[in-house]
This record gives sequence, structure tokens and C-alpha cells, in this order.
Amino acid sequence: MKYLHTMVRVTDLQPSLAFYRDALGLEVLSIRDFPGGRYTLAFLAAPGNPEAQIELTHNWDPETYNGGRNFGHIAYEVPDIYAACERLVAHGVTINRPPRDGFMAFVRSPDGISIELLQAGAALPPRAPWIDMPNQGQW
Amino acid sequence: MKYLHTMVRVTDLQPSLAFYRDALGLEVLSIRDFPGGRYTLAFLAAPGNPEAQIELTHNWDPETYNGGRNFGHIAYEVPDIYAACERLVAHGVTINRPPRDGFMAFVRSPDGISIELLQAGAALPPRAPWIDMPNQGQW
Repeated sequence: MKYLHTMVRVTDLQPSLAFYRDALGLEVLSIRDFPGGRYTLAFLAAPGNPEAQIELTHNWDPETYNGGRNFGHIAYEVPDIYAACERLVAHGVTINRPPRDGFMAFVRSPDGISIELLQAGAALPPRAPWIDMPNQGQW
Repeated sequence: MKYLHTMVRVTDLQPSLAFYRDALGLEVLSIRDFPGGRYTLAFLAAPGNPEAQIELTHNWDPETYNGGRNFGHIAYEVPDIYAACERLVAHGVTINRPPRDGFMAFVRSPDGISIELLQAGAALPPRAPWIDMPNQGQW
């Protein structure tokens, strides 16, 4: 038995790729249109960890993608949590829970999926501007 | 960068362990109470694939865990999709989307988290009672 992926629905594919690929740093493994079912599937994964994937489902017919409380978040370990957050900010992503502790951060996808980032190994030394950056919104 | 886990919130820990551990077949890696924060965290993973985990968060103060459409499902590959579904049924789980095709099935956790099961490798030959079992509910 093996974990394959977590699937999330996305309102628009391009802003979602801008978030998951460009800002978060996942790699796109495949993007495939299914005209018969009127949807597109994109599979992404962390570089060097292609077996644990995230599946983005884009239904071509618009739908509102509200969140629910039974789902919490998807978590990734990153080699440098400050560098990860800097890249997210450079792409316009709000850091909802900044890594004040050099260890943990939360952001949200364009459709409100909460993503947790955890520093690989020990926490990094706390440092500016993160150390006193307030929370923004919920995650 | 590495995928760590998908976190879901659970109303009650024991029915959730009965589902994720006993019926679905995941292994419990740890269960830890955090009295200060009034929550319990359980980490589970597929046998032989301990690095890709699911985190169950049980908040001790009751809350209603509705679902949302932005989250889709969590998918696992299984060595024998019929055996997997038989074990789920034996534990009282409704097979929302039976593996009529010998390849794909969907069930839901006690808190409505959709779980996709996919047959490893090629689809198994369709067979009774699955081949003509109707869908039940949504997934």
C-alpha cells in the first residue's frame, strides 16, 4: 500500500500553477486535458520526491470552491524556510503564519487550501523580518 | 523539499482509528496528547511507506467538521483493491464508488474525508459482487 496524492480542486489552473509551481516550488509532472469530462488534471510534486503528489483538478464548468473544516492542510518540509517564504512573498503570496520561530509557516492557495511549511531538521535561528512579523488571516 | 503529510480534523479519535487503521489498513506511527492545547495528534501511513503520512487532529473541544469543495480526496495505491474493499466492508464502511472496473474505489472517513483507492499496476479482472454494485452517495 502506498500514498499516491492529495487532490484539490482549483478554480483556475494558471493562478494555481503560479502558486504551487512558481511560488511554492513544486514541479509539474503532467498536465492533461480531458475534453470528454470537461476537466484538466495537473500532477505536481516536490523536487526529488516525485512519488508523493498533489493533483489539481480544474473543472471547466465554473463552481465555487469553498473550504471545509474537516480538511486541515498539506505539509511540506523545506531546506530553508526563510528562502521558501521569500519566494512565496516575491510571487505575491501572503504569509499567513510567518516563520517567526525559524521552523513553521502557513500559506493558502488561491482556492484556500492551507499549506504548512516545516524547516527540515532543526529550526533556523530567528531573524528579521520574520521574527516579529504578525499573523495575517487564518490558515 | 519533501511531502510530509496531509492533515485532517477528526471529531472522535477512536472511530477515526477504526476507519484509517483497522478498515483502511494504515499503520499508526504515533499518537500524542497535547493537554496544553487540548488536542491529540495521530500520524498514520501506509505500511512500507512511512514517509508520506496522514495527520489526524482531534481537538478536545467539540467542533463541527463540515466538508468543502476545494479539497478533493487522499489517494492510496493498494495491492488488491477487492481485498481492500472487503476489509472496509467488514468494518462497516460504505463503498461509495465500488471497484466495478477492478481499478478504482472511493470511500469516506467518519468526518467525510474522501479516500480514493487505486489498484497497483493493471486493473484486476472485474468480478462479483463488485462488477454490478451501484454507487452510494457522493465521494
